[in-house]
Amino acid sequence: MARNAIYAQSGGVTSVINATACAVIKTSRNHPHAFSSLYAARNGIVGILREELYDTGKEPSQAIDQLRHLPGGVFGSCRFKLGPPEGDDPNARRLFEVLQAHDIGTLFYNGGGDSQDTCSKVSELSRRFDYPVQCIGIPKTVDNDLSQTDTCPGFGSVAKYVAVSTKEAALDVQSMCETSTKVFILEVMGRHTGWIAAAGGLAGNGPREPPHIILFPEIAFDRRTFLRQVVRTVKQVGYCVIVASEGTRDAEGAFLAEAGTKDAFGHVQLGGVGTTIARMVSDELGFKHHVAVADYLQRSARHISSQTDLEQAYAVGEAAVNAAVAGESGVMVSIKRLNDEPYRWETATTSIKRVANVERNVPRSFITNNGFGITARARRYLSPLIQGEAYPPYRNGLPLYRGLLNSLVPKKLPAYGEL
Amino acid sequence: MARNAIYAQSGGVTSVINATACAVIKTSRNHPHAFSSLYAARNGIVGILREELYDTGKEPSQAIDQLRHLPGGVFGSCRFKLGPPEGDDPNARRLFEVLQAHDIGTLFYNGGGDSQDTCSKVSELSRRFDYPVQCIGIPKTVDNDLSQTDTCPGFGSVAKYVAVSTKEAALDVQSMCETSTKVFILEVMGRHTGWIAAAGGLAGNGPREPPHIILFPEIAFDRRTFLRQVVRTVKQVGYCVIVASEGTRDAEGAFLAEAGTKDAFGHVQLGGVGTTIARMVSDELGFKHHVAVADYLQRSARHISSQTDLEQAYAVGEAAVNAAVAGESGVMVSIKRLNDEPYRWETATTSIKRVANVERNVPRSFITNNGFGITARARRYLSPLIQGEAYPPYRNGLPLYRGLLNSLVPKKLPAYGEL
Repeated sequence: MARNAIYAQSGGVTSVINATACAVIKTSRNHPHAFSSLYAARNGIVGILREELYDTGKEPSQAIDQLRHLPGGVFGSCRFKLGPPEGDDPNARRLFEVLQAHDIGTLFYNGGGDSQDTCSKVSELSRRFDYPVQCIGIPKTVDNDLSQTDTCPGFGSVAKYVAVSTKEAALDVQSMCETSTKVFILEVMGRHTGWIAAAGGLAGNGPREPPHIILFPEIAFDRRTFLRQVVRTVKQVGYCVIVASEGTRDAEGAFLAEAGTKDAFGHVQLGGVGTTIARMVSDELGFKHHVAVADYLQRSARHISSQTDLEQAYAVGEAAVNAAVAGESGVMVSIKRLNDEPYRWETATTSIKRVANVERNVPRSFITNNGFGITARARRYLSPLIQGEAYPPYRNGLPLYRGLLNSLVPKKLPAYGEL
Repeated sequence: MARNAIYAQSGGVTSVINATACAVIKTSRNHPHAFSSLYAARNGIVGILREELYDTGKEPSQAIDQLRHLPGGVFGSCRFKLGPPEGDDPNARRLFEVLQAHDIGTLFYNGGGDSQDTCSKVSELSRRFDYPVQCIGIPKTVDNDLSQTDTCPGFGSVAKYVAVSTKEAALDVQSMCETSTKVFILEVMGRHTGWIAAAGGLAGNGPREPPHIILFPEIAFDRRTFLRQVVRTVKQVGYCVIVASEGTRDAEGAFLAEAGTKDAFGHVQLGGVGTTIARMVSDELGFKHHVAVADYLQRSARHISSQTDLEQAYAVGEAAVNAAVAGESGVMVSIKRLNDEPYRWETATTSIKRVANVERNVPRSFITNNGFGITARARRYLSPLIQGEAYPPYRNGLPLYRGLLNSLVPKKLPAYGEL
């Protein structure tokens, strides 16, 4: 008799991660001999440790279908690191106790870089503990920084959101710039890589069109050069629109952002690039400015998701189940680009060791010489990812976002006090 | 032979003000004997003073039609105050020199509270200078604070944007709150009135649903009461979503926002409520928090405009021309609500003296007893305004936003150096 499977969401959620969940569940239902039961972990791996597993089999198919439209993570997610596999992490032992108690033979781990690392560790621990469990990583991240995959589900929608928002806000600023606000800064996500900021560049076609300046973590920020570019732009076109990545940093590597707390993965929690830049512009140039901080709005904006992104988010979930059925393990599902125009792609699998903890920066060839814009090469890469508008259904003026029953499986183990 | 008319946009622009422009132009074209030429002022009244007038007659009808989809102010806008009519303002004299030189018999002034005040002044100056010009005010403001009109074009779309964004971001926060961010703050516009913040309340159905706390300028902010409510909410539901108006202030009337520069109308330029609240939450409660500042994104978001708002924006432009044709003057076009459910409304006109400089606050009956939410009465008022999704056309993943030729009329007067 087939064993059971767990699907877990991990790391920051996106507007389309639930489409991946939808695909994993529906595709499993189409392979009834693959797994006896498919569970979903409540809040990701923390849920597995707490033995908090949802039985997805209890959900009506209509509810599962509607997951395509739902932003956020329907099962909950977390940022949680396992210790090194060769160490003696009680969480690792507990994890396998739970997997064994529920006869889990397959783990689908849907997350970004840190999550693929976790998936890789579980794969190693499986060998160390001599407990067979297929580990299948499913890519997801708004940051688009997973290696070995053309793009990451979640990114195309944020890219669309940022490009659309930049285009719209710029028209607003342009209307009023003669007597009012001259400089507008849109602060976007991107802890270490500038993919999201780069996407803002799709709103225009060069340095005279908004966004006039993009700030990338990959390019050492120089105050003087930046301010000169702002002045030049305002002289030429009357106003200046800047898309600034939260991870923008100077030549010494110091983040421009002012906050400095850390999140559970040890990453510096950023915030404040927009304010820092605005202060520079105000103090040194005296220009009236406005700052928008997109924050969670950019990654939850299912109301304007990219149809391409939605399709890819679904496809990787489907491919993950197919890979499991085919007996693969220690792999991450990837997206392989076959052609730029027209955009053609397919799913594949790649060794998870190659992916884990390798961050993919925006290539220098995607950024203009002066460091403030994107090149034609970047556009060729980015543009297909924002095609198509995946509007959710509405009722009474608001999107119809429905959750699940999320019915917990009865526990078999004592409570876990270590968390 | 008929005289000429000018249409001017004034104050902060919205995602639908160009639909009003579209209506004024199209309706004028349907009454060819009403005006010889219809000009549009470049950057509003500042353009009239500089004698920078666009000839709308040169625009192809397809380009005019597409104005319905275009955010920002296609002719440009400004914040500019005329001196008191009984005074000796050189700008007032220059204004009438320009009006006279171009045989302007009708002025359509499309703006918010300060703009209706300007329109009212021009009406008085018309009498004082003995130069007949019909002054027709057309309402517009995201703040929804014009009196004598049920609602203001521009507001319904911001309301929709804020409600949708709140709903989506809340799902994101809810997914991760157990191990990550517990408090999310969305900072929205609203210098003196809480209409936009109130609209965020449509995202949920009570204090246990996001937004759990709304901060209104109309309610004196009390730090202790607020923090207690945050703690109570996090205890009950695990997280807390706050929609905070930029105009939130304490019992002494001091704005929570930290910035304090002034704009051209003498209003304090606000910014920073989100950061101030976040700091409180962090310092006193130790909760991990995130802040989004919608800024210009909320008022330029034509990608998710309210269909109801779009129709009203068009209707007031049409009604303005009809009022002019009927010989009215010194009036503002208004929207009159006939019924809540189903929502029925019509346009009317109201004396501009009754409107000018009267700010309409959110009524106390729209706010819950504890000051943190909206009542059923508020929902009955707000809900119809966000109905329907007015999506713009797209191309290559981005909205298709097209401008105009904006062809300047030859000048007749010497340059004006006073500005």
